[in-house]
Amino acid sequence: MGATQAVEAIRWCRELAACSEVRGTTTRTFLSSPMRDVHARLEAWMRHAGMDTYIDHAGNLRGLYPGATAGCPRLLIGSHLDTVVDAGPFDGVLGVVIAITLVDLLGGKRLPFGIEVVGFSDEEGVRFGVPFIGSRALIGTLDRELLDRRDAEGRSVADVIRDYGLDPSGIDGVSLQDANGCVGYLEFHIEQGPVLDRLGRSLAVVDTIVGQSRLLLTFRGAANHAGTTPMAMRRDALACAAEWIVAAEAMAADTKDLVATVGRINARPGVTNAIAGTCEASLDVRHANDAIRTAAVSALVDRARQIAGRRGIDLQCESRLDQKSVAMDGTLTALMAQAIESSGAPVVHMASGAGHDAMVMARCVPAAMLFIRSPGGISHHPDEDVREEDVAAALDAGESWLTLLARSRSW
Amino acid sequence: MGATQAVEAIRWCRELAACSEVRGTTTRTFLSSPMRDVHARLEAWMRHAGMDTYIDHAGNLRGLYPGATAGCPRLLIGSHLDTVVDAGPFDGVLGVVIAITLVDLLGGKRLPFGIEVVGFSDEEGVRFGVPFIGSRALIGTLDRELLDRRDAEGRSVADVIRDYGLDPSGIDGVSLQDANGCVGYLEFHIEQGPVLDRLGRSLAVVDTIVGQSRLLLTFRGAANHAGTTPMAMRRDALACAAEWIVAAEAMAADTKDLVATVGRINARPGVTNAIAGTCEASLDVRHANDAIRTAAVSALVDRARQIAGRRGIDLQCESRLDQKSVAMDGTLTALMAQAIESSGAPVVHMASGAGHDAMVMARCVPAAMLFIRSPGGISHHPDEDVREEDVAAALDAGESWLTLLARSRSW
Repeated sequence: MGATQAVEAIRWCRELAACSEVRGTTTRTFLSSPMRDVHARLEAWMRHAGMDTYIDHAGNLRGLYPGATAGCPRLLIGSHLDTVVDAGPFDGVLGVVIAITLVDLLGGKRLPFGIEVVGFSDEEGVRFGVPFIGSRALIGTLDRELLDRRDAEGRSVADVIRDYGLDPSGIDGVSLQDANGCVGYLEFHIEQGPVLDRLGRSLAVVDTIVGQSRLLLTFRGAANHAGTTPMAMRRDALACAAEWIVAAEAMAADTKDLVATVGRINARPGVTNAIAGTCEASLDVRHANDAIRTAAVSALVDRARQIAGRRGIDLQCESRLDQKSVAMDGTLTALMAQAIESSGAPVVHMASGAGHDAMVMARCVPAAMLFIRSPGGISHHPDEDVREEDVAAALDAGESWLTLLARSRSW
Repeated sequence: MGATQAVEAIRWCRELAACSEVRGTTTRTFLSSPMRDVHARLEAWMRHAGMDTYIDHAGNLRGLYPGATAGCPRLLIGSHLDTVVDAGPFDGVLGVVIAITLVDLLGGKRLPFGIEVVGFSDEEGVRFGVPFIGSRALIGTLDRELLDRRDAEGRSVADVIRDYGLDPSGIDGVSLQDANGCVGYLEFHIEQGPVLDRLGRSLAVVDTIVGQSRLLLTFRGAANHAGTTPMAMRRDALACAAEWIVAAEAMAADTKDLVATVGRINARPGVTNAIAGTCEASLDVRHANDAIRTAAVSALVDRARQIAGRRGIDLQCESRLDQKSVAMDGTLTALMAQAIESSGAPVVHMASGAGHDAMVMARCVPAAMLFIRSPGGISHHPDEDVREEDVAAALDAGESWLTLLARSRSW
């Protein structure tokens, strides 16, 4: 079951990928001009599936499929419609396409709750350097400061909303003030990592979205001539950072499910014939358990201090981000595990190592996420792909989940 | 002895440091406009000391102090008058100032050889990206290719020579075609390293100028999401490079007098939340013994291959420079050791870890070098300094050396 719909869903994603700011790539930032085309195509499909649609004042695509009774609660299903620069066709969009497909598959059948499909306007944060503009509007935290933020061309979020024909003063009305009447939020998303691919599994239930620490470490030694400074008389900031990077990698590998990454390094003066006097290195640490994460950050910084101290190097550590982990809703997640089991597949549970709209939505409503295998773990790249069988499995799980949810309580 | 002259020599260097392309710093590249002022001031002093002066067609300042007889051979003493960007006051210039002081100290007394003081136009290579334009003209290797090289503003070496009022077609005439009539070349230079400072000594006789290898290593792994890629599934190019940098440092420290430096590193995509897919690292290896140097380069590259292989990282090594060591002349160097001993000071012998005009000149004439202590090992920096007592010791050694040389053979 779901095989035809899976082919269709993948076709939709590939077609929408052509709606791009840069021809021949997929690049679609917050309310950029190709977003109009995406909105128009999806709205037509949503109406055909029986939804009332509109674009809210934060630029989110919203589609309401009524429930069995007037005034019954509603369930949100969604993901984001913006992309990174030179993106693949599935990150975000696939979640919206699956949501619409699930409504379409209902064929007019009423559930004890309505379904609202949401296509968020911005999750990647490319245009304004801060992510989650769309979902922050839904939970009521798209504040003045964010609206005043400007893009590379000097246009503010408010300007861009206005240019799209929307009204930034209407933002407050976007928020889920009736969150009590909201059953929850469900998001389908590609894994964007290699775990399911290595396990040979289609789907994973997301239990938690990991917490995240970002730091900048600056090692300060002494810049010196590469030819005239004997090895024993050096205070090489790059060699010091290198020793710490290797230690950090080993420490992270020793703690289950911890990831620690040094992705950015900058040695100065940064020339072949001079010993580096200064070296900056970024540190990104993630774990589903905040206590494990903060302990790991402390240990990594301690190790850096120890290595720097031994080498006569001055170390400065600056915290850039300390974001707590976010648990998905236990009830909705258990129903999803049950839905997958009902198809006979084993249930994979995992933490999401990346942030998602579900992380923001969870601050306001019960949230659940289902990951779909990323072949090769590739994402944020034109080669990003999905398998038909995995999308079909996701659609099956989604249908079962809706049925299980409808039966799970007295409405 | 020499104390007053040392104070004067230091004063000269500090005054000439103000002749700069950038006000408030010392930046003076090949035949840039402040070089006219340097030439004018030094020529006036040289004439006063009894020299005939001119600027040759490669922009070198030349001053001839006659010997006892017409047609007697001549000795070259010199160093360079250009500087790096934001330089100190002593690198290069001090050697020219000491040379003139030594002639001045002769007070008209004739030696069995003439003395030609040379202030080279370019040793640092800042303006055209290749060093030794001045000394290469003297040994006859300033070729058409070098004359056609262009600076950042698109002006060629030949253009710049012409603009200075010189004639690039006269370059061939600059070369020491009568090198047989040349006793040799002597260069005084600051050490630009910390060795003499740590030893608590003023001077060192340079035995050899080290050979030098430069390589670019490119590590290629897989760029991936820092949050969604478990540690065990990574092919982190930066972590791989870091492991090698630490190993390279340890290997260099294990070989006497070897220096190996990774000064430049570039990780891509180079962002906090992505594993580096590619990492470039420079390698600079130097030793006075070429066999030791090339063996070390092989071992360092082998180690990189071994580390990369274990991590599933592709490694590419590109040789950028392979420059043999250059021995100073045994006779002239022995005379310098004798000159220092005659003052009662112990003689320090060392290799020069940096290239100097003496290295180029040695291809054509017997060459010798005397290093003067660099306090704190600082050079290529505005804080670069020299001590009066060390300059005085250099002047004393220079005077003794001239006397010893005059007596060393029948002219």
